[in-house]
Amino acid sequence: MKVLVANLGSTSFKYRLFDMESEQQLARGGIDRIGQDADSNCVVEIGGRTSEVQQRIPDHAAAVQICLDQLTDPQSGCLGSVDEVAAIGFKAVFAGKLSGVRRVDNNLLETMEALADVAPAHNPPYARAMRQLQQAFPSIPLVAALETGFHDTIPEKYRTYSAPYEWKEQYEVQRWGFHGASHRYIGTRMAELTGRDDLKVISCHLGGSSSLCAISGGKSQSTTMGMTPQSGLPQNNRVGDFDPFALRLVKRLTGKDYDTLLDELSSQSGLYGLSGISPDLRDIEEAAAQGNERAELAIDVYTADIKRYIGQYLAVLNGADAIVFTGGIGENSTRVRSDVCAGMDYAGIQLDPEKNESAKGEAKISRDDSRVEIWTVPTNEEIVVARQTVEVVSA
Amino acid sequence: MKVLVANLGSTSFKYRLFDMESEQQLARGGIDRIGQDADSNCVVEIGGRTSEVQQRIPDHAAAVQICLDQLTDPQSGCLGSVDEVAAIGFKAVFAGKLSGVRRVDNNLLETMEALADVAPAHNPPYARAMRQLQQAFPSIPLVAALETGFHDTIPEKYRTYSAPYEWKEQYEVQRWGFHGASHRYIGTRMAELTGRDDLKVISCHLGGSSSLCAISGGKSQSTTMGMTPQSGLPQNNRVGDFDPFALRLVKRLTGKDYDTLLDELSSQSGLYGLSGISPDLRDIEEAAAQGNERAELAIDVYTADIKRYIGQYLAVLNGADAIVFTGGIGENSTRVRSDVCAGMDYAGIQLDPEKNESAKGEAKISRDDSRVEIWTVPTNEEIVVARQTVEVVSA
Repeated sequence: MKVLVANLGSTSFKYRLFDMESEQQLARGGIDRIGQDADSNCVVEIGGRTSEVQQRIPDHAAAVQICLDQLTDPQSGCLGSVDEVAAIGFKAVFAGKLSGVRRVDNNLLETMEALADVAPAHNPPYARAMRQLQQAFPSIPLVAALETGFHDTIPEKYRTYSAPYEWKEQYEVQRWGFHGASHRYIGTRMAELTGRDDLKVISCHLGGSSSLCAISGGKSQSTTMGMTPQSGLPQNNRVGDFDPFALRLVKRLTGKDYDTLLDELSSQSGLYGLSGISPDLRDIEEAAAQGNERAELAIDVYTADIKRYIGQYLAVLNGADAIVFTGGIGENSTRVRSDVCAGMDYAGIQLDPEKNESAKGEAKISRDDSRVEIWTVPTNEEIVVARQTVEVVSA
Repeated sequence: MKVLVANLGSTSFKYRLFDMESEQQLARGGIDRIGQDADSNCVVEIGGRTSEVQQRIPDHAAAVQICLDQLTDPQSGCLGSVDEVAAIGFKAVFAGKLSGVRRVDNNLLETMEALADVAPAHNPPYARAMRQLQQAFPSIPLVAALETGFHDTIPEKYRTYSAPYEWKEQYEVQRWGFHGASHRYIGTRMAELTGRDDLKVISCHLGGSSSLCAISGGKSQSTTMGMTPQSGLPQNNRVGDFDPFALRLVKRLTGKDYDTLLDELSSQSGLYGLSGISPDLRDIEEAAAQGNERAELAIDVYTADIKRYIGQYLAVLNGADAIVFTGGIGENSTRVRSDVCAGMDYAGIQLDPEKNESAKGEAKISRDDSRVEIWTVPTNEEIVVARQTVEVVSA
């Protein structure tokens, strides 16, 4: 069975094609500038060979069409026909209680559209593109793996806000959690790497968007993002945890309305808002190395928040077997890993500075006498979505 | 030197009179129903003997007048004359960067009034009463010990939100922290009880209003309340930590405006909102014992949040020497202490169930082999305010 996994942006479409018997990746590709007044780059990489065409791509249906054309190209393709694609899987963000993994249908799409205010950057382009694909490829099953699904196992006491009970009961206001595919992958992969299925893991997905997850025996117990992906750790340009009552003060002092302030908290905040330099940690680390104080503060706040959440999750799990860093920052920033793990020997956490500096791919970077193992593990959200997609279409 | 410490409510005035050479409490008393259409009870207890008068008390100046009359009463009083009162100290809540301890002047009062939206339940009645006392007793120095003062030592990385930097710079939006007098007392008292001044203590002030504080060598390193006393742990009827972006969803679904929703979060939430029973944990524990599910959930969420913050502060402090429970709930709820400390042996935290059940006053309730000592210690905010008041008037 072959499964295409789609990663949708408002003007982009990235994908991977998997053979699910072997779990091998057959192809990967991407199309940018969708719906724009310019030619798109339509790139596909199959068996190490890259092909590329330039073409106007008016919408996501056209993007998937060119992707399928490239995959079935008699010379450079890897598919005999489009019929070999058993399903397209999507890492969708939020549909409230329609969580888990499920066929894309009108009910799901309407729910995603209605809940756009929870994930304004993600839900609208996903729902729009899925509708186009439904129409353009009615014979290919579409499957949505919701980001929240992995967190369905979080106990009530950890998912409940102390807001009016009706907000939870009637409006589904609770800590949903996101980044489910990534945290699920880390949980599964660490069980494989250690040969243990009872592991207690703290998964640190650090990138443009960051979250931590406390995992016990492969099941999510707690995660940093709450009702929306704007909460938890500082994000590239989104605020993370914030006291909503501070908005009253800022509203009075600035004369701006609440919606404007919430927009600033989801676009002018996080690493960008603190540093004033960039939403990209690489730029901020560079500025900090040159002595920029706000860049230094941004890194300090970010790593301090990660450290505090690791402390929380040690309490949630009653200690951990492993802390895993993944995502663009988690896999590549030696400074972030080092700052986060410093001064944590009370819990038996001992980073090996040399291993930390030289880590590439899957690597254990803790000292041999560290009670808690520390790892870098590249995440693979697509294979998780592909596996879940197979489960749904096989059911 | 004798100092009167005042605790002001919008319709009440409670006080203690200390002799500061011996730090002995000479008298305590209270006046209720101030400004109401009924007689007030004006109670004073001096040397174990209680006197009481009923009288109309139109405002806080009148309340202080009757208090001084009672204290200087030739038969039952303990003061020869009002001149013996060297100062009146107040545990004031919030005046932004006018933190610490300071003489009450117009600048302070105007700042407290301007910042009423940060502490709407506390700032307005305090400022109003202080103005009355300034006028009525111009010869007695008034001193304000701000709740935020103890937290001035929190490092930048722990006090900074990832909001736009201008919000911090221009509008003082940061984690200020509150309950400073109580946490300071616990830090000082634990140093006395153990004979060590380098202690790492997690102070758990649990009551109608709750907060935790990570203290190292007597200095606050982190605390659960942030910009306002509505954040952090669930409070009696206030929400604690909450994702502000959830407000967009609830606004759309209910048609209520943001201010109404913030009001609900600060009056219909916390232990009351979750349980639907009472803001008082004693009522909720009773209902839970009878099988009420929402009461059980409220206790679970409250204790889980305390446990998570203890985990955080273990990471902030790199382990702790002692965890101290204080406040009405902290000193009296054996269940809360037991639930919070359960499953924390990864950090060497071992509660002794029998000592926990029988604890009265200052008591060590950890097992002898617990690496972290666990204590109950009744707080004494008034003596802290009295000491700080002496510092200011002696300076």
